[in-house]
Parts: sequence; structure tokens; C-alpha cells
Amino acid sequence: MDKNPDLQAVAGGGLLDRRLFLKQGISFSVAALVSDSLLASTGNHRQPWMQVPGEHFSNYGQPSAHERQTIRWTMENSMAKGNGVSWTPLHNLEGTITPNGLHFERHHNGVPQVDPKKHELLIHGAVKNPLVFDMDILLRYPMTSRFCFIECGGNSNSGWRDKPIQTAAGYAHGMASCSEWTGIPLNILLNEAKIDNGAKWIIAEGADASMMNISIPLEKAMDDCLLAVYQNGERIRPENGYPLRLIAPGWEGVTNVKWLRRVHITTQPTMARNETSKYTELLPSGKARQFTFFMEAKSLITNPSFGQKLNQPGLYQISGLAWSGRGKIVKVEVSADGGKSWVEAELQAPVLSKCFTRFRIPWKWDGKQTVLKSRAIDETGYTQPERTELIQKRGKHGYFHYNAIISWQISKQGEIKHVYV
Amino acid sequence: MDKNPDLQAVAGGGLLDRRLFLKQGISFSVAALVSDSLLASTGNHRQPWMQVPGEHFSNYGQPSAHERQTIRWTMENSMAKGNGVSWTPLHNLEGTITPNGLHFERHHNGVPQVDPKKHELLIHGAVKNPLVFDMDILLRYPMTSRFCFIECGGNSNSGWRDKPIQTAAGYAHGMASCSEWTGIPLNILLNEAKIDNGAKWIIAEGADASMMNISIPLEKAMDDCLLAVYQNGERIRPENGYPLRLIAPGWEGVTNVKWLRRVHITTQPTMARNETSKYTELLPSGKARQFTFFMEAKSLITNPSFGQKLNQPGLYQISGLAWSGRGKIVKVEVSADGGKSWVEAELQAPVLSKCFTRFRIPWKWDGKQTVLKSRAIDETGYTQPERTELIQKRGKHGYFHYNAIISWQISKQGEIKHVYV
Repeated sequence: MDKNPDLQAVAGGGLLDRRLFLKQGISFSVAALVSDSLLASTGNHRQPWMQVPGEHFSNYGQPSAHERQTIRWTMENSMAKGNGVSWTPLHNLEGTITPNGLHFERHHNGVPQVDPKKHELLIHGAVKNPLVFDMDILLRYPMTSRFCFIECGGNSNSGWRDKPIQTAAGYAHGMASCSEWTGIPLNILLNEAKIDNGAKWIIAEGADASMMNISIPLEKAMDDCLLAVYQNGERIRPENGYPLRLIAPGWEGVTNVKWLRRVHITTQPTMARNETSKYTELLPSGKARQFTFFMEAKSLITNPSFGQKLNQPGLYQISGLAWSGRGKIVKVEVSADGGKSWVEAELQAPVLSKCFTRFRIPWKWDGKQTVLKSRAIDETGYTQPERTELIQKRGKHGYFHYNAIISWQISKQGEIKHVYV
Repeated sequence: MDKNPDLQAVAGGGLLDRRLFLKQGISFSVAALVSDSLLASTGNHRQPWMQVPGEHFSNYGQPSAHERQTIRWTMENSMAKGNGVSWTPLHNLEGTITPNGLHFERHHNGVPQVDPKKHELLIHGAVKNPLVFDMDILLRYPMTSRFCFIECGGNSNSGWRDKPIQTAAGYAHGMASCSEWTGIPLNILLNEAKIDNGAKWIIAEGADASMMNISIPLEKAMDDCLLAVYQNGERIRPENGYPLRLIAPGWEGVTNVKWLRRVHITTQPTMARNETSKYTELLPSGKARQFTFFMEAKSLITNPSFGQKLNQPGLYQISGLAWSGRGKIVKVEVSADGGKSWVEAELQAPVLSKCFTRFRIPWKWDGKQTVLKSRAIDETGYTQPERTELIQKRGKHGYFHYNAIISWQISKQGEIKHVYV
């Protein structure tokens, strides 16, 4: 046991009080103490970049050339280019915002090159006033902003495999990204169209070549759906739906229709390809699980995680992301002994509904082999399940909505592997 | 007076209740009603981009080619390239986040091309344990995240001129940007270095060729300063201080030292160039105003603003940004009659301390000439002053810390000019 009372573990495997780093006088003792001579040489040393004038100003900045490993990992169907995904490198990111260039992609027929001067949105069907909007007209409407995540219903689907996939955290779980979206509340436009009594669904359709469409209950459309025009301050990027994207906060990614061109109000869902042959799955009972809109609570330790290495025993900060499509994350618990004991992590303020929430907790690694886990609890009381629980409930034919606890095994050498335990 | 009670003005010039758009059934009546034949042709029309497969997936996305006007406006000293600024195009943005590629720049000798593997941070001076950190060591330390703005002390300085400058809102007031910064609380490293009794200041120094340095009271360094490594989720961009930037929330930009290489703890400020010959100014009393760290409360209507045009009378949403280096914005008031009457705007949640806050208010323009203004009030009770008040207090030799109310005149033709009134 550590002699410093602050460094005494509050759970197995060396987890420390989550507020430890708010206290004064905690020393990591990993920095080098400087001798007088080193002090003089470090202080006076002129690095090469201090000896020449720097680069010029730029109209639009780009990441450092030293950060080329921080990219989306792309996977296209070789038989049908443009059908595929790209993952956000969550393992290389910190905080909660995903920069626009790294937001995950899921396209059915590539990224259409939409001309915003010619793009139109049609609202029609079971309405008194069918309406058509061009972008200039839409920009006259009132806007609101919100931070929220979008997660593909197929995110983490490698978790259904029999053996744990060995890949970076973001490249297994990074079909989830988080932005500040700004746009027009959909209910303003639906009210203006005057919806018929008896209407119950909307069918949202994109302007890509596949005309990707999906049915969404009218109740959600009237609640918090947004016609987004801006992402993290600037106009939405082409691959995220430029010039107009439907945002359905907390609901599976496929409902967040990109390049939105049409909202058709109906009494029934349309039974589109992406709500029947896809995004629907067989349960052990033999019944189909359909219209599984909500993304349930989930969490992921991003640091340390697969592909990183702990160089020595000692004090670390465990850091990760949690989110729930049902509302706010109220608690994230972390285990450093493979799930035997759990302790509450610190949540980064502000904790927002249906938004990435960063959690962190101090950890003193003793150099022994162990397993790190995290589990999210949301405001409905729902707790992220262990993998065995999830499979018991949903069977082994799953492909979508995998949200089981993710486990990282730390070896004595500090190497990190994905395990099922 | 409008017959719809919801559309009755709550202040002069047609300002409407800030919660109007939260009500049901408000119609903008600017969209086109669709006839049956138009409905069919719009619904069935296949735009050119729907007839071919779209573009491929990408490792790192870029803005649409149709958004090339949304750029930083750069201005370099022709006699000393690398000394200058670039402005964030706030007039083209919405929400509160500034995308990393558009964060404003203020460099003294260009952007150094720092190699993160060779970069070191030295903490020394009035300490018991002088310390040196490389980036690998720094990344072991605990991190925290916060959303905050950075504003150059010289932002909006054209406001000191006798005649109102006619330029886009962002290109006059966009030396202010807002990000989610993630990094190591500076107080953790200062505690580890064990500061001597009697120490009162730190001198922060950058690794650019000008070795830009600045004195900061130790109290601030121990309070909320951050050694930022990540900006909006990804590693800081080169022009924003890669790989390490000092963040001094709410304090003038020059204290947020980029490419941070040295923190020297002292008993006195160093009287550097940028705290004596610059960022210091003459008051009417003949005294100098020095160490003016706090950025006082300010607001700016970004939409509508100079360069935009109102095409017709009718319902609009006024939208803008407010911020204060003293804490939270508690209220933004808007006037649509040149300051005769004011009404409270809606603040976008979450309202965070020392952070951009988006305000919005509905407005029914009657087609007459008028003047729009906004004023911010922060949690200290401070109210953004009119220009005449600011000049009375500070004289006409000002160059820094201009935060007077900004006025946009709308002509009968819907054209927008910057005015002093």
C-alpha cells in the first residue's frame, strides 16, 4: 500500500480517487529534474525552427505533417465503390468534439457533389401545404445549435465475432463522432406545411445516387430533429451532407439523412431497404428486431487502448468517451481488475444530453497483467451490459447495435490487447 | 400592429419575443407553396449529382468547393513577413465552435515548424525542482478539457478610427475564436516544480524565431491556465501552437503563448516588448494602462451584418456572439431602433464561462431604414459600453481592448453598413 494517503487505491488494480488531480501537491515524478548545466543548455538551445522565420499565414489551416497517423480509416466495397464506411480515430483524439475532417462516414453510393444553388428540399405527402425550399429560403429560417453525437447502427459490429478483433479503438468503435450542429428545427417547417391528422411517419430521402431513404416516426420529427446547415461552426462538409443534413439526436446514424432533399409525410413507414434487409436483425426467439432507433448507452477507454504501450509502472490517467441516445450520461464506472471492482470516473463538464461525455480517472499501474473496463450508466438508469449479457439477450446473429463493455488487457510489458472477459 | 398577437413587437424596430420560435404554428411564409405539377417535377427531378456515383471516402475531409469565401483574411507586414494577423470569418459561421482551420492567427515571426520529438518544455527560475519535459512525458500527465474563446488584445482596433470601417463582421472583429481545448492544468506542473515563497510571476516563452514572451501573474497560472495539446479533439494545428500552447482563459490573446518552450518563475514581470511598447496604451490622464489582461464583455451581431442583404421586409432571426473574459454572459440585449429600446435575446445553452455564447432573437423588418445593435452583460454586472462612453474613458489614443457596441445600419434597400451612432 502506498504511504501517501492520496495514492491509496479506491478499487482493485490501482484505481485512485477521481478527484486526485484536483488536489495540490500530487507528483507524477516522470519529468526530468534539471541540473544547472542542462538548465543552461536547454534554456539557451536554439532549435532549428527558432533560427529561421516561420511559415506564412494561411486562409484555411491544416493539421501538422507530424500528425499524419490521425486519419479516418476507410473501407469501400470493392464491387461497389462508394458503398462503405470510414472510422473516426478516437484513439488519437481527446476532449469531446470530433474535428470535421475526421467525422466518420457511411455512404451508400459515394459523396454526391451537390450544387447548393440548385439543391431543393421538398416537404409533401399528408400535409395541407406542400412546400419547396431552396437554400437561400432555408437560411431565412430561425436556427438553433446543439452538441450531439451521431453513431452508425453498425458501429462496433466486430464485437459480434467469436474472437476479439485486434485493432485501434477508433477503428473498431469510431463510427461515432460528435459535433456542434446548427440548423432549423424540423418542427417549424412541418408546422408551416400543416400536417394532416392521422399522419404518423416521415420518410426522409437524400440526394445521393442511391436516394438513401428511411422512415422516422413523426413524434421524433416534431421533437428534436434539426435540418442542419452548419457543423462545428462552418457549413457542413460534403461527406457529412452538404448542404443540408437531417439530425435525429441519439438515433442510429442512418436516420440522420445526408444531402436531404425530401421529407414525405405518411401514415405508414415505407419499408425501405435500410429498415428491412438492413438495420433489422434476428433475435433468438426467431422474431425480427426492427426500427431500433435509439443508440443505447456505451463507453470506450481511448487511453490507454490497443496499439499504445505503457513504458513503465506508475501513475496514469485513464481517459475515455461515453454516450447514450436516451439522454445524459450520469455515471461511468471503471474497473482495473477485469470487472471484480468498479469505481466512478470523473465526468468532464458540461455533461450534455445525447452527446459525447469525456470521463477520466487516475490509475497507478503496478506493472502486473490486468484488464481495464468501463461501463456507462445513463439518466434512464440503463447500464451498459457485459458482452455475455448482450449475447444472451440478442443471440449470435447480431450485426447492429453492439454496445457491450470493452475490455483492454495490459500485459506485464505494458502492451495492450482487446479481450473478451 | 400585426394582427397575430405573437408577432407583436416587444421593442422598437420590430423586435419580437425571444421565445417566439419555440411556439407552434409561426409561419415564415417565405417558402414556395407547391402546385401538383411542380410537386411531381420536383419530386421526380434527378439532379445531375443523383445520376452518377459520388466521390470516394477520404482520410481527412475538406470544406465544399462552394464555400471558398469562408476563409481567414490574412494581413502580413510587407517589411517583415510572418508578422501579422488573420481573421476568423465570423460572419460566415454559426453556433459557437470555430473550426480549427479558421481559428484566427497573430504571429510575430511566422509559424515555426516544430518537431514534436525534439520539442521540450522547461520550468525553472524561482523553484526548488527545475524540470524539463518532452512531449512523451507531458502526455503522461492528467488532462482536462474546456471550451473557451481566445481574443487578441488588438481585436476590433479599427473601432478607434474616426470613421466606421466598412468590412465584414469577422474581418473587423474576428481576432476572436472559440475551441474546446484539452491539456494539462499548469498548476500540476508548477506544484511538481515546487515554487519558492515570494514568487509572483511567470514568464512564458514560445519557440518561434521571435521567442515571443509575456509575463503572467502566478495567481492566474495557478488558477485556470492549461498546457493545451488538443484543440477541438485533434492535436493543435501548427499555426495555433503545435505541439503545446499555453491557454489563459479569458485573458488577452498574447498571454496564450504558442509553441510554449519555457515557463520561468520570477518575482517581477520581465517588461517584455509585448507588455511595454505593445499591449500598453496612453490614457487621457497621461498615465499608461499596462497589464490589461482581461478581455471585457463584448458582443457582435453576425447575421445580418455588413456585406449581407435583406431581400424583402418580413420575419428574420438576428444571430450573434457574445463573450466575456470575466466569466459567463448572463444577458445580451438587442436594439432594432438604434438604441432607443432594448430587449433580451435568447442565449443558446450551454452558456459557459469565458466562452463564445450564441444569442438569437426574432425580428420583423418593416422595410424602413433602421440600426441594429447588441450589448453583452456578464456575470460581474459589467455592461458592454457605447462607443462614446468607451472613448470618454479611454481617450482617442487607444489601439487595444476595443469592446464598444457595434451598430449595423439597414437601408430601405436592405443593404447593411457599419455606423457609429
